[in-house]
Amino acid sequence: MSLRAALRNKHAVTGLFSQLSSCSSHVRVRGSPVLVTQQRKSSTTPRIKVEFNQSTGVAIMHMQSPPVNSLSLDFLTEFCIGVEKLEMDKSCRGLIITSSQPKVFSAGLDIMEMYGKSPERCGEFWRAVQEMWLKLYGSNMAIIAAVNGSSPAGGCLIAMTADYRIMADNPRFSIGLNETQLGIVAPFWFKDTMVNTVGHRCSEMALQIGLLYNPSEALRIGLVDQLVPEDQVLSTATQTMTKWLAIPDHARQLTKTMMRKPTIDKLTSSRETDIRHFVSFITKDSIQKSLAMYLEMLKKRKG
Amino acid sequence: MSLRAALRNKHAVTGLFSQLSSCSSHVRVRGSPVLVTQQRKSSTTPRIKVEFNQSTGVAIMHMQSPPVNSLSLDFLTEFCIGVEKLEMDKSCRGLIITSSQPKVFSAGLDIMEMYGKSPERCGEFWRAVQEMWLKLYGSNMAIIAAVNGSSPAGGCLIAMTADYRIMADNPRFSIGLNETQLGIVAPFWFKDTMVNTVGHRCSEMALQIGLLYNPSEALRIGLVDQLVPEDQVLSTATQTMTKWLAIPDHARQLTKTMMRKPTIDKLTSSRETDIRHFVSFITKDSIQKSLAMYLEMLKKRKG
Amino acid sequence: MSLRAALRNKHAVTGLFSQLSSCSSHVRVRGSPVLVTQQRKSSTTPRIKVEFNQSTGVAIMHMQSPPVNSLSLDFLTEFCIGVEKLEMDKSCRGLIITSSQPKVFSAGLDIMEMYGKSPERCGEFWRAVQEMWLKLYGSNMAIIAAVNGSSPAGGCLIAMTADYRIMADNPRFSIGLNETQLGIVAPFWFKDTMVNTVGHRCSEMALQIGLLYNPSEALRIGLVDQLVPEDQVLSTATQTMTKWLAIPDHARQLTKTMMRKPTIDKLTSSRETDIRHFVSFITKDSIQKSLAMYLEMLKKRKG
Repeated sequence: MSLRAALRNKHAVTGLFSQLSSCSSHVRVRGSPVLVTQQRKSSTTPRIKVEFNQSTGVAIMHMQSPPVNSLSLDFLTEFCIGVEKLEMDKSCRGLIITSSQPKVFSAGLDIMEMYGKSPERCGEFWRAVQEMWLKLYGSNMAIIAAVNGSSPAGGCLIAMTADYRIMADNPRFSIGLNETQLGIVAPFWFKDTMVNTVGHRCSEMALQIGLLYNPSEALRIGLVDQLVPEDQVLSTATQTMTKWLAIPDHARQLTKTMMRKPTIDKLTSSRETDIRHFVSFITKDSIQKSLAMYLEMLKKRKG
Repeated sequence: MSLRAALRNKHAVTGLFSQLSSCSSHVRVRGSPVLVTQQRKSSTTPRIKVEFNQSTGVAIMHMQSPPVNSLSLDFLTEFCIGVEKLEMDKSCRGLIITSSQPKVFSAGLDIMEMYGKSPERCGEFWRAVQEMWLKLYGSNMAIIAAVNGSSPAGGCLIAMTADYRIMADNPRFSIGLNETQLGIVAPFWFKDTMVNTVGHRCSEMALQIGLLYNPSEALRIGLVDQLVPEDQVLSTATQTMTKWLAIPDHARQLTKTMMRKPTIDKLTSSRETDIRHFVSFITKDSIQKSLAMYLEMLKKRKG
Repeated sequence: MSLRAALRNKHAVTGLFSQLSSCSSHVRVRGSPVLVTQQRKSSTTPRIKVEFNQSTGVAIMHMQSPPVNSLSLDFLTEFCIGVEKLEMDKSCRGLIITSSQPKVFSAGLDIMEMYGKSPERCGEFWRAVQEMWLKLYGSNMAIIAAVNGSSPAGGCLIAMTADYRIMADNPRFSIGLNETQLGIVAPFWFKDTMVNTVGHRCSEMALQIGLLYNPSEALRIGLVDQLVPEDQVLSTATQTMTKWLAIPDHARQLTKTMMRKPTIDKLTSSRETDIRHFVSFITKDSIQKSLAMYLEMLKKRKG
C-alpha cells in the first residue's frame, strides 16, 4: 500500500526531499479551548498539523501527507520535530495521533526511500524510522492512536507505540505488519513492539505471512483496543484521554517506563548495527529487484 | 480502598503495631477431617485463622482482620508465619486463601503504614510485603485463591500468587493493581507477577491507569480463572484442589519452580535495592502530600 | 497414552531397537504432481511415509508407526532423517505432518524407552528427542501440523513446533503436555515452546496439572489455530500451505528465525547438561517405581 501510494505521488515525493524538515507545523495556541491552525511556509503544506488544547493538556496530531501519509524521510523528520516539541512542553500531557487523509491512517514506510537509493541515504532514512519509534514508544505523554483508516506496516507500528488504540469499525480497513509480503523483513524492534502488544504466538504467525487484520480480527487478537463507527474515532479518543490524564503523571510515566524500557534499551544500544543491517539488506540486488518488480506490477495495475 | 479501610480502623491499627507479630493463629488439628479452631492470645483476635484438614492435606487460611484485611505490618507478619508453618509441614500439600470479611478479599497494602512513618519503619514494612510475595509465589504447596470479595492492589497481588483463582461472580466486586490511582507505582515484581498472569499488553494498560476489573472482565483477560456464585467460592476451591493434588507433588513442584524461579530470582537478588527505592519514593514530600490529600478526601466522604 | 501404546506393542518395540534407524522412508518422486510411495526394507515397514509434490514444493509426512506413533528411539531416528532430507532439498518449501494411525496423531515419548533402561541408553534416547525438536522448531520450511487425532505429551510438542496447527474437531481427541500426570516433568524447552504458543499463564497451569484439552478448548487458548471436520484436516492443511508459500522464502525464514532463535539457542547451548539432567531424573528409583506402577495399572486395565 505504501508502495502504491509512493507511486501515485512519486514525483511529488522525490521532489520534496530534505527541504521540508525545517518546516514545523507545531502550533501552540494558548488560552482558547480548541484552536486549529496550520503553519504554511512558502508554498509547502506541512505534512503534520498539530492542534493543542491548553485547557485539557491534549494535543491532536493530524497526519496530512497526501495521498496516504507515507513515511518518507521528510515526513518522519517533520513528525519527530512535532512530537519532540510537545514532549518538551510540560503543559502537554496527552497526544492523539490521527489521519486527515481519507481511508488511511498511514500506509507505512515510503518504499521510494528504499528503492534505488545510495547506502548513505538508506541509512539516513532508517535512522529517522528508528527516531520516530524511540520518540513515540518512549514518550512520557499518554498517546492514543485514533486509527481512522488502514494502517499497514509502518502505519501499524505507529499505532502500536500508542498507549491505547481506537480503530474505525470499517471492514475495508486493515492493520498489520505485512512486510514479508513485499519480500522485506520487519526489524527486531518492530517485532518486539508487536510481541508486547499481541504476544509471541500471534506475532510469529502475523509476521511470517505478513497478515493484515480487519478491525474485528484486530480487536480479537488485541492489536487494537476498541472499535467505534468511523465518525466517532476522534471524539472517542478525546473522551478516553480524560481517563488516562486522571492518573497523576509521575505514577503513569514511571509505570510506562517500567513496562517499555527493556524494549527501548535493546534498540538504543544497537542503533548503528541495526542501521548497517538494514542498509546491507535493502541494497542487495535481489531485494532491489523484487522491489522493482513490485513497483512495475503496481504501475500496470494503475494503467 | 485500603486507604478508606485504614481510615476507618485508624486508631485500632496504629494502636496495635508490632505487638501482634508473635501471635500465631496457625492451628493444627490432627486426626479429624475438618476442624476449625482459633487461637486467642490475651484480648487480641488473630488476623489469620487456619483450618488444616489432615486427611486431605489441605489448609484453608481465612483472612479476618476487620474491616477489610488491610496488609499492615502486623497482618503481614502473622500471615507469613502462618504460611511458613504450613510450608514446613510435609503433610500440608494444598493451601486455600480466602477472606472472613464481608465483600472484600483484601483491600491491599495498609496506607497508614506508608503515611507519616520513618524511613526505617517504611523499610521494615516493605520487607514484610516482599516476604509475603516470596513465600506465596515460591510456595511448594498448590495454592488456590478463593476471592470472595473485592481485591484491589496488594489484595490482587495475593490472588495472583496463587496457582488458581476462583472469584465470586458479584458485579460489585473488583480486582486489579490500582496503585497509580493513588499516585504510587507498583514495583517491578508486582508488574512481573501481573505480566506472568495476563500478559504484557494487558498489564501495561492496567498498571498505567490503575484499572480495577469486575469479575466478568477479570475472567475475560485471565486475571481470574473461574467465576462462581458467592456462596460457592470456597466449596469450588476445595473441589478444585483435589485435581491439583491428584498430581504427584514432586512433578508439580518442579514444574512450578521452572515457571516461577526466574521471576523470584529477580527480587531475591535485589531486595535491598528495592527497599531503598521504595523508601526513597514513599517518603518524598510530594508523595506524602498526595497521600495526605487522599486521606483528607476520604475523611470528608465519611463525614 | 504413550504408555498404553507402548504396552500394546511392547514386544514389537523392544524387538526392533536400533536396527531400523538406517531405514529411510524418504521418497522423492519428481515430475508428477502427487505420488505416494513407500520404501520397504526386508520385512520392516517404515514408520514414516513421505509424499513430496515437486510441483507445489510441499511434502506430507505421514507418521505410521502402529498403534499410536509412539516416539521410540527408532521412530525419532527415522523421523529426523526424513526431516533432514527434506530440509536439504531446496525444492521442498513446505512440510505437512500428519498421522496414518486412526484416532491418534502421536501418543508422545515411548515410555518403554525410559523404563528399565541403562543411563547410556536413556541418554541416547533423550538426545534423539532433542534432535527432533531442534530440527522441527528451527526448520526453514513452513510446517503445518495436521492433527488428526489425540496428541498428548511429545505428540503435542511436535504439533507446537509447527507454524500452523489444524486439528480434527472431534471432542474425543485431546492435546496437551500431560507429563506431570505420569510423575515426570516436561523439560525447559518443552515449556518454552508452550509459553511461545499459549503464553505464560496458560502454560503454568497446563504444565503443573498435566492438562489435556479437547479441540474446542485447545482452539480457545491458542494451542491449535483452526478446527475442521476430521476428513478435512489434510486438505485444509494443503490449502493453508499455499498461503504460507505465497510469501518469499527468505523473508519468511528470516522472520521465523528472529522469533525462534533465542528459544533454540537455550537448548543448543546446554544439550549435554539437559541430557545429564534427564538421565539422572529418569533413572531415580522413585521415578522408575512410579513408571512401573503405571505400567502395571495399564496391564490390569487391558486385562
